Amino acid sequence: MTDTITISVDAMGGDNAPRAVIHGAYLALQERQNTRFIFHGREELIQPLLDEFPALKPVSSIRHTEVVIAMDEKPSQALRKGKGTSSMWMAIQSVKDKEADVAISGGNTGALMAMATFCLRPMDGIARPGIAAIWPTLRSDIIVLDMGATIGADAQQLVDYAILGSALARCLFDNNSPTVGLLNVGTEEVKGLDYIKEAGKILTAASGSGFTYHGFVEGDDIGKGTVDVVVTEGFVGNIALKTAEGTARQVGAYLRSALQSNLMSKLGALFASSALNALRRRMDPRTVNGGVFMGLNGIVIKSHGGTDEVGYKSALGLSYEMAHSRLMDKIAETMTRFPVKAPAAPTEDQTEARPA
Amino acid sequence: MTDTITISVDAMGGDNAPRAVIHGAYLALQERQNTRFIFHGREELIQPLLDEFPALKPVSSIRHTEVVIAMDEKPSQALRKGKGTSSMWMAIQSVKDKEADVAISGGNTGALMAMATFCLRPMDGIARPGIAAIWPTLRSDIIVLDMGATIGADAQQLVDYAILGSALARCLFDNNSPTVGLLNVGTEEVKGLDYIKEAGKILTAASGSGFTYHGFVEGDDIGKGTVDVVVTEGFVGNIALKTAEGTARQVGAYLRSALQSNLMSKLGALFASSALNALRRRMDPRTVNGGVFMGLNGIVIKSHGGTDEVGYKSALGLSYEMAHSRLMDKIAETMTRFPVKAPAAPTEDQTEARPA
Repeated sequence: MTDTITISVDAMGGDNAPRAVIHGAYLALQERQNTRFIFHGREELIQPLLDEFPALKPVSSIRHTEVVIAMDEKPSQALRKGKGTSSMWMAIQSVKDKEADVAISGGNTGALMAMATFCLRPMDGIARPGIAAIWPTLRSDIIVLDMGATIGADAQQLVDYAILGSALARCLFDNNSPTVGLLNVGTEEVKGLDYIKEAGKILTAASGSGFTYHGFVEGDDIGKGTVDVVVTEGFVGNIALKTAEGTARQVGAYLRSALQSNLMSKLGALFASSALNALRRRMDPRTVNGGVFMGLNGIVIKSHGGTDEVGYKSALGLSYEMAHSRLMDKIAETMTRFPVKAPAAPTEDQTEARPA
Repeated sequence: MTDTITISVDAMGGDNAPRAVIHGAYLALQERQNTRFIFHGREELIQPLLDEFPALKPVSSIRHTEVVIAMDEKPSQALRKGKGTSSMWMAIQSVKDKEADVAISGGNTGALMAMATFCLRPMDGIARPGIAAIWPTLRSDIIVLDMGATIGADAQQLVDYAILGSALARCLFDNNSPTVGLLNVGTEEVKGLDYIKEAGKILTAASGSGFTYHGFVEGDDIGKGTVDVVVTEGFVGNIALKTAEGTARQVGAYLRSALQSNLMSKLGALFASSALNALRRRMDPRTVNGGVFMGLNGIVIKSHGGTDEVGYKSALGLSYEMAHSRLMDKIAETMTRFPVKAPAAPTEDQTEARPA
């Protein structure tokens, strides 16, 4: 396919914006020539960077905004200040206006989720949005959601995440019936909380409608890659993701210190340097950068805020693939096929991500 | 100190019982000569093993039981069948009867928690027991609890875990005022769930009473060792622990495959073999084997069920240290010093660990 994909970019989001963002776009363009960019932000800062990366000029346009959302701004405050005026909001607005196929920001997650939810609105039949992470495992990449868009969940929300996550898996992994597992604890008798059991019953009945329901999985099944999609409530998902990141860093630090421990180990590290560099690249968090906001009427990608141009390149590549593989169509298709998908019931609102 | 510590051992608990248990006791005795063992289980199986490890004979006694709790037995079923008759129950009973200082079992966690709770009862002022894990981090070992003894928590239970965990940290780390953090998600505005915020307020007011309250921590703070004690609800704690285990295994597998990738890397691994072996030992889950059941009128240690004699040696060593450092006294002392420790309110019972 040679469709041109237009990515709407919050050029001001993240610690190293706008330089890392524009540089990342330049790198992303090298990999996918049929990309177009709309950069939202302060023109006086963006224009000189386009002069620095002239290859971007023919495929980019700049939309000037004065307002920039700070990394520590509260979502409600960001929404009041930035609605209709900030680079973050306008990046999302371009998706709503169908000027762009997907929006991306490295700005603060809470503000971005609040703006995306307010601007794009949840899809019909989906109560609350989720954030999906692409998680490298021993088998292949898998999807884990929710990563903390919403704190607290009920059975129907877990079912929604299963629908959204399996649509995403079908886009990314070219797999027509990805396996879905519900994250739970292992004690046989309890098997966790009632809402998870209830979601398990609904998914068992619906298995085969665009996904295959595997059953409950435990924390260590994530790294094993037992299923293609792991579904969990946002608080738990966020803790699991960050705990895994912390553990990976910890083991990496152990390894570095082991290889520095004596002369022979230093020599060994020298011999093995190409393999160890490949390992380093494999564990580089920049290569799998980007959370996918799911369940809204449009695709928004959250890049890690502290990343550099390489991280932005990855997140922009992910944005391209989400649009190119027609994620929104795949979600709609899964929802149509889902046999027991009732209209979303109103739920207790426990998150700031849904502005009042 | 030369106190003799008596450990009451469920010799039948775990996949490799009783051989791994008795062999582990032999190894543990080499490290701590002033240990005594009471082995509960089938005499006809235990006696030949003592003949095999004769050093154990003068410090061991056998209490014959016919009933063995299976690894997949439901807690309620185990309790009906094994109360007063099984090796698991009798191991705990010896602590209640003050014959032993601490009990240990590699049997199934749910059954063990149900029996320990029923036999020993929660301490005055503690509503529900928790399981504490000793978690290696980049700084030093830390304590994380609850690992899934109880699903669901309220503010007061998190406060209880802070008291129990800091007493354990004072035993293990020789630190008079360990730092305590509440596990939470990072979004500034939400900062997680109301019960965690409420616990944070109580702990802020009580900081200095045997612990120093640090504030909220995130998942990646565990591996960093940001605080000495991480407090969380059991479902989340269990997912975090297993996710970390899965990630450590995953990175280990990446490393092995990297070092096998070409001739130079194989050569490098050979040069670095002593350092890599040290790393393997450091990451060996058998060296930090043992969950500490906390909040009951007596100490019970859960060994991993699938471990071997080396794992049992670690868990028996931990059992010894818990008794030797007078964990129960340290908990009582922390509770006395805690300024706002109100009598525990009755809470909704969501776990099977408290038999009806």
